[in-house]
Amino acid sequence: MTNEPVSDQVILLDHGSGGLASQQLIGELFLKYLDNPILRGLEDSAVVDNRPGRLAFTTDSYVVDPIFFPGGDIGKLAVHGTINDLAMRGAEPICLSLGLILEEGLPLTDLETIISSISEACKQSGVPIVTGDTKVVPRGKADKIFINTSGVGIVPETISLSSRQAAVGDKVILSGTMGDHGITIMTRRAGIALQGNLQSDTMPLHRLVARLLAEFPGSVHTLRDPTRGGVATSLNEIAAASGLSIQLDEKSLPVRPEVRAACEILGLEALYLANEGKLLAVVAPEPAPALLSLLKATPEGQDAAIIGTVVAGTAGRVVINTPIGGSRVVSPLHGEPLPRIC
Amino acid sequence: MTNEPVSDQVILLDHGSGGLASQQLIGELFLKYLDNPILRGLEDSAVVDNRPGRLAFTTDSYVVDPIFFPGGDIGKLAVHGTINDLAMRGAEPICLSLGLILEEGLPLTDLETIISSISEACKQSGVPIVTGDTKVVPRGKADKIFINTSGVGIVPETISLSSRQAAVGDKVILSGTMGDHGITIMTRRAGIALQGNLQSDTMPLHRLVARLLAEFPGSVHTLRDPTRGGVATSLNEIAAASGLSIQLDEKSLPVRPEVRAACEILGLEALYLANEGKLLAVVAPEPAPALLSLLKATPEGQDAAIIGTVVAGTAGRVVINTPIGGSRVVSPLHGEPLPRIC
Repeated sequence: MTNEPVSDQVILLDHGSGGLASQQLIGELFLKYLDNPILRGLEDSAVVDNRPGRLAFTTDSYVVDPIFFPGGDIGKLAVHGTINDLAMRGAEPICLSLGLILEEGLPLTDLETIISSISEACKQSGVPIVTGDTKVVPRGKADKIFINTSGVGIVPETISLSSRQAAVGDKVILSGTMGDHGITIMTRRAGIALQGNLQSDTMPLHRLVARLLAEFPGSVHTLRDPTRGGVATSLNEIAAASGLSIQLDEKSLPVRPEVRAACEILGLEALYLANEGKLLAVVAPEPAPALLSLLKATPEGQDAAIIGTVVAGTAGRVVINTPIGGSRVVSPLHGEPLPRIC
Repeated sequence: MTNEPVSDQVILLDHGSGGLASQQLIGELFLKYLDNPILRGLEDSAVVDNRPGRLAFTTDSYVVDPIFFPGGDIGKLAVHGTINDLAMRGAEPICLSLGLILEEGLPLTDLETIISSISEACKQSGVPIVTGDTKVVPRGKADKIFINTSGVGIVPETISLSSRQAAVGDKVILSGTMGDHGITIMTRRAGIALQGNLQSDTMPLHRLVARLLAEFPGSVHTLRDPTRGGVATSLNEIAAASGLSIQLDEKSLPVRPEVRAACEILGLEALYLANEGKLLAVVAPEPAPALLSLLKATPEGQDAAIIGTVVAGTAGRVVINTPIGGSRVVSPLHGEPLPRIC
């Protein structure tokens, strides 16, 4: 933004003033990577074409620490996370917003890497950023960069997915292994180097969802992406919303060996770890095996498994059958916070 | 959230875990104030009814310091600001999202005051929060609270407002006095006590805009709300987008005497100060006087004035005629950042 080499430049308070320096940042960095006719208008709101169907709307702020990690970065995570929240209601994602809070002193090269990663994630997902906002706070008043992505999608009139739709007898499918994102962030932050290839599972799931809904119309009752709080917490929410119980089968839970090993070292349970490229599907029992086969034939769902069943019983209770024949209640996450996991 | 008196409770990292403490915060605080059938679903996305028209979509993060100030607080500001960004494209605001980034240790009473203020602003505006997200970062990694509000609105097919629509001969109307918000934050932060009643002008403008567009169809070409960077910067953006010049008349610029006095003391120019309840309207010349009369008869626009004219000339140039017969170029804000003004 000045004559200094880019590698020496940092974010200044002036970049958040709304004036000339903000305009330069928008022109020379944001539009360079994220350009499209709607964003380029730089109006107070983006205006986009509407389509038939109901509106889906979601928001997420990302404060993950570290901002770069194996398998992704805060920017990619923000794009995928919001796309996935739209997809979980059966929406086709239409567009995203990008709200940045930057700490004064953030190296411009770090910001450029993140914006470039956002650009790539948007292109691969086919969902553009159409509106944005950048604030800068003085050194020490934020930590490098926080990102909010909100998103709008269209839900076809024939689709109605919610946690309340889970019904007795439904099968619970998890689209892949548990805990990859959470354990990657935890070990990276703790400075623990483990054998194997730990990396975040951050991935957009909207195309997978579109296929499931098209090929199994009416069979999918609920979709949730088990992010913060993990599979355990999302299943508790589904059980509470539907007023039913969920019975899990411990030995069917997909966990990568590296993740299992890291969990043992750190004293964590994979059921509570954040996932950023996985979904839980509650589906009618008859088509469940065929639906699982479809999932397993996709890159997003190759490790999918049927992990449990919705049953009548205490509303909101999740129970797991252990391999030795016992059972225990799986409560929502509490008491051991894993801060800044996403 | 525990048995301690609420006044002693503070935000803990656990409130951002996505688990039980998060759910308690949602149930006992957010739903207490912001409850509506869509938010109550607590799904990954809100799903709302669609309406005919194009979609307007906008986002803004709020990092204002201090979080409470005369005339408002960070919560009210966030609701009004996003509603206004939708209104500036002629959209009817439909719903808002609320993304909170909280610093560990934030007193729960402060959070409750802000959420209560958000609730009141939503009720008065008739625009609900339908989806939300809360993150907590450790002490010292953020400053009390940052808020992102994104918003969705519907633009009737007959309405097309943008900065590019400004045309030669158009009149520029400012809906009220300049700089009230900016100077209130600056003096409060500097610990300066001034005579008079300085307070933020934060206010929703969507009803005023709806009336203007209904009563003067086709006459309003551009609307912008001059927030960060002030009237000067917004007019530069309109001039640049339309490829025209704008001529301002200094003596017609509405400024409250208290604001003028504070500007003199602090060495600031009201043209560059943030406004949070004002709009700039670029309108066809013939109906301009009648449109001004309508504005002046509303609570939002009682101090409105015609402040300038769009003219042929250097693209993107804004010039002001001074009372002593001279003229000078009004550039966009640069070089003197006013951080965390909104």
